[in-house]
Formats: sequence, structure tokens, C-alpha cells
Amino acid sequence: MAPVTVAVDANGADLGPAEVAAGAAIAAARGVRVVLYGPAEEIGAVPDGVEVVDAPASIAKDPDPARAARSNPDASIVRVAAAVAAGDADAFVSGGSTGAALAAGLFQVKRGRGIYRPALAVPVPIPGNPITFLDVGANVEVRSEHLVQFAFMGAALAQTVLGVERPRVALLSNGEEPTKGTAAVVEAHAVLAARAVGSPALEFLGNVEGNDITSGVADVIVTDGFTGNIALKLIEGLSQSILGAVRDAALSTPRAKAGGALLRPALGGLREQIDPEGPGGAYLLGLRRLGVVPHGRFTRYGFSQAILLAARGVSGDVVGRTHAALTAAGALKGTPQVPAAPSGSAASVPSP
Amino acid sequence: MAPVTVAVDANGADLGPAEVAAGAAIAAARGVRVVLYGPAEEIGAVPDGVEVVDAPASIAKDPDPARAARSNPDASIVRVAAAVAAGDADAFVSGGSTGAALAAGLFQVKRGRGIYRPALAVPVPIPGNPITFLDVGANVEVRSEHLVQFAFMGAALAQTVLGVERPRVALLSNGEEPTKGTAAVVEAHAVLAARAVGSPALEFLGNVEGNDITSGVADVIVTDGFTGNIALKLIEGLSQSILGAVRDAALSTPRAKAGGALLRPALGGLREQIDPEGPGGAYLLGLRRLGVVPHGRFTRYGFSQAILLAARGVSGDVVGRTHAALTAAGALKGTPQVPAAPSGSAASVPSP
Repeated sequence: MAPVTVAVDANGADLGPAEVAAGAAIAAARGVRVVLYGPAEEIGAVPDGVEVVDAPASIAKDPDPARAARSNPDASIVRVAAAVAAGDADAFVSGGSTGAALAAGLFQVKRGRGIYRPALAVPVPIPGNPITFLDVGANVEVRSEHLVQFAFMGAALAQTVLGVERPRVALLSNGEEPTKGTAAVVEAHAVLAARAVGSPALEFLGNVEGNDITSGVADVIVTDGFTGNIALKLIEGLSQSILGAVRDAALSTPRAKAGGALLRPALGGLREQIDPEGPGGAYLLGLRRLGVVPHGRFTRYGFSQAILLAARGVSGDVVGRTHAALTAAGALKGTPQVPAAPSGSAASVPSP
Repeated sequence: MAPVTVAVDANGADLGPAEVAAGAAIAAARGVRVVLYGPAEEIGAVPDGVEVVDAPASIAKDPDPARAARSNPDASIVRVAAAVAAGDADAFVSGGSTGAALAAGLFQVKRGRGIYRPALAVPVPIPGNPITFLDVGANVEVRSEHLVQFAFMGAALAQTVLGVERPRVALLSNGEEPTKGTAAVVEAHAVLAARAVGSPALEFLGNVEGNDITSGVADVIVTDGFTGNIALKLIEGLSQSILGAVRDAALSTPRAKAGGALLRPALGGLREQIDPEGPGGAYLLGLRRLGVVPHGRFTRYGFSQAILLAARGVSGDVVGRTHAALTAAGALKGTPQVPAAPSGSAASVPSP
């Protein structure tokens, strides 16, 4: 089997293009063919097994990424997406602006047939209970049919990449009752409840609350990109804060210091489990080919993980299997909707 | 000075009315006059310093709290709100359904003059960086003017209860740029940026992201009740998960066990800092008198903290000071709005 080819955008990373190149070298050593698009001068010595295409133009900091992606065909993020569209690469990776990656993906790679909106799906680093969480930032405001598609897209991803046979899928809301949540959540709940009956693609759990993100009840949790982005960053920030507080406690007294030293090796595994760089970032699902969006602040380790995540997604045919799941579920745009009347109002605020 | 009187709803707590009564006794011993409304039979022996009013009817589990609060004047939550409205108590506490507390508050106590929507504001239990966070569940969908009021309400609360002189207030969003977020967030950002210039009530920081909830950059973080509810429960769930994982690590090897035993006393303080019962629940702000909404799953400790929180809010005149802050800021309903044109679009999704 030919190796998977991943086109990687070297611009937009906080630590600079050379750090992305170092990550590319790690992934190349693991058998991925990497083509790196970025400023050749800043990348410096070309790492073994990595091909460099000089593409110094960057739109990672542009305040209007959609317009920038349209009007800058030379920008590195546009070039990696174009390489994928042309069949020169199987997937792209960009740690620059999410908006630019999304725009370049939409313009170059195009959205899949019947897909309303691409979504960013991330394996969340939670100790013991890995979940697939989407959307974490592609769609600030959503309609119910978007959430329904995200549910089937997330389930297909969990099946393909995590090997979960019939993923348990839930909508994130402010209460478990089917009447709780925004209008879009209440409607999506009714549609999913009707459509998931007997579906081999997923088991629909209904709504879950914020504490269930870490409780292990669901394999896939679906939300809009505003809430999902905030929740994901909160998970990363709070995990680090609490481990930091544990470390501070372990320095507070001589007795605690001794305890901390003995405990350190056992805590190493936990630190690794909740490291945001471990999962490698988010899959951009819903395009005709795969994209992966790591954090701009990742080190070479995170970028190597992002490239390996992209390669695994290509090998596992995430795009094809996601589309097949949506087709089988009747969740593509243009498919007649299962009639569903939400059983209550979305508002929890009474009008006196 | 006469002691503060708090009317407490004994229904709706997971552990039953007797647990709420035990919490009432703890608060009474600290100098608060407590009147407990609930099923006298289940409450049992009346604790010292607590007055019991037999009010067995409960609407805590009603799926339509607004209608239930309107049509059940005998329900304990309606009676505590009515006691406050009649001046028989200074504040009410209810750990039943948030919707019922909100509805009973609106019908009986009434919203304050010029207030669009009451909001639930909670001191978040984060190690080292206490923040005031609102709305955590009263308003699932909000308009920009609601968020603007929440900002001034939260700031007044932080000044009054936490003693922060000029609170740093931020809007929670999916990016720091003023163009990031839902349409309501983008608009509220523009209004707050214009209105906060030179305001003694608050310093407006702009948008913060999910990881900033725990980073200590802001004193007050403002969001809609859907996102806020999810974030608050996520904080509680994740804090417990990570401490649980630390505990598991400390049991994984004999060496780690020895370390855990030495570290345990130092970690006790951290566990206490992130205990959701510590803060006592959320203030219901925006009514003519104060309400406090603890979690239904709290133990007696959490209920005692809720009653003490209510008493502190009354002593500090949270309601009066919040209203004064909104008046001074020109943020009451009917006040002419500062003209503000958002500088960009709310959507981060480009249309190709």
C-alpha cells in the first residue's frame, strides 16, 4: 500500500515554521509522506523524509479569513487545501487560524454532497473516558439539522477511528429533559430520537449535561461550535489548573514534598492522558477530503500527532465512512426529514 | 441590627427535607433567622432556631415550572417567594427546580425596574482564582442587551460580596477578537466597550476564551444561561474526575501509595477549594429581593452555605447595589442605548 500523503501548512504556529517541520520529521519517520508548505527560508534544513514547497505567504492572522482565503491563492493554507483537491495529497493539516482552514477547505476541497456544514471533531483528553466531541469551533450558530448531521458524523468517526461498535451519542444541553436547551437542541433531540430507533450507526442517549462530558456515559457528544469551543478550552485550562494546584500542594510542606516525589512517576501517566497535544487536534469533517486542525500553540510533538491523526483518518476512510453513515441515516441535505414535533418549548424562562 | 430572615424551601433536595432542615439549623446557629417551608411530617423534629411552616406541596419535578408556579399558590417554592414579597423574609433559598424558583420569583417578588431578565450568578470554585460567573442557567437564549445587563449585575455582585474594587469583566466567547462569537456576543461587546470607558463600575476586558475561566484574568465572566450552565457543570465534573484520577494514581503502586498518604493533608485544602457546596449555589439577581439557588444534590453543608450566602447578600444589599450600578451605567431597560456598530460579522463560517 502506498504511504498516505499529508500536506502540512507550516505557517501560523506560535513556535514558528521550523517547529512544524520538526513535527513533520517525526511523522515522516513513522511512515507518512509529508509535503510541507511554508517559508523555505524559515524552515531551514529540510528534514529527512519531508518534502518542502516554498510558500511564504500566510493568512493565519487575517481578521477576515474567508475573504483572505479567496483572494490569496499563494497563501500556504490555500496551497495545502489545493494540493488535496488536486489529488497531490490525501489530507491537509493546518495550525493557523481555524477560520482560514475552514474557508480554504470549503473553497478548494469543497463540502461533501448533502453536507450542510463542516464541523470540527476532537477526541477529548479526559482521563479514562475518551469522547468524541463536536463541533468545537467551525459553526458559531447552528440549526437543528446541523446538529443532527454532527451526531451521525461524530458516530462514524468514533466507529472508524476509535473502534466503538455502536457509539452512544448525546446532545449537550442544560438539562436532561427533551424540552431543555436552545430551540435548535430541542428540535435536534426530537429528530434524533425518531431517527435513531434501531439504527446501527448510533444509540441516541438524549441530552447530557456539562458534568457528563467527563463521566463516561457517552462516546460522542454533540454541540454547537460556540459552546464546544468554550468547553474544549475550559477542559484544557482547568485540567492544567488542577494539576498545577496539586503540584503546589506537593510543595507546601516538607511532608507533602516527600509525598509528591514518591507520587510523581504514577502521575506522569495522568499528565500524558490529559495533554492536549496527545490527540493531535481536531478533524475537519464534512469536506470531500480530510483536514486536521491542531492548536497553533502546539510543539513539534503536537504537530507530529496531528499529521499521524490525518494519516489514520485517511487509512480508516473517515470521509467515506462518515458519508456512508449520513446516507444510511437519511441525514443528508435534500433527504426528506422524519416528521417530529418537539414536545415542549425551548425557553426555560417563564413570562409572568 | 435585626437578624436577616431567610425563607427556605425544604422540597426538591435529593436528600430530602430533613437534610435541608439540618442545613437550616447550621445557618441558624450562625445567627440567621430561618423559616423553613416544607412537609412538616418529613422534616421531623424542628431544629433549634428554625421556624417550620407546613407546606407539603412541591412543584420541583413539574415539567412546566412556569405554569406550575402560577397555578399552585400552595407549593413551597411559591410560598417562600411570597413570604419575601410580603416582607416576612429578606431573601429566599430553593434547591428544587431552577425554572420553578425563577418562575415563583418573577410572579411573586417581581423583576426589578428596568431589568430585562433575572440571571443566576455563581462564585465559581476554582483553585486560587475565584470568579463571578453568570448566567448559569436562567436564560437559555439571550439578546445583547441581556448580556450587557449581566455584565453590570455581575460587577456589582463582585464589588459587594467579594470586595473587588473595580471588577475586570469579560464576555465568554470562542475567540478574543471583538468579531468572535454569536451575534448577541458581538453586539454586547461593542456596547460594553463604548459604555465601560471611565466607568467606576467595571473594567471591560473584551472577550475571553474557555481556558480563561480558570486563568485568573477576569473577576466576572458573562455568558448566556445555556453555555454558562454547561460550563459550570463541566467545571464541577472535571474537577472531581481529575482529583479522582490523582487518587487512582496514588493507589497504583506501593511507592505511589506511600506518596499519596504523605500528600493527603496538603490536598485537603484543594478538595475544599473546589467543592461545589462551598459557595452555596447561585444568586438569582434581577428581582426586587434576593434569591439563592443551591444544587438539589447538596448535603446539609451546601444548604447551610446557601442560606449564609443569602444572608450575606441581604446584609451587603446586593439588590440595591446591583440596581444602582445598572442605573449609573445607563444599562436599565428604557435607557437610551449608546450607539454602537459591531465591527464585523458574527459568523466564523465563510460562505464559499
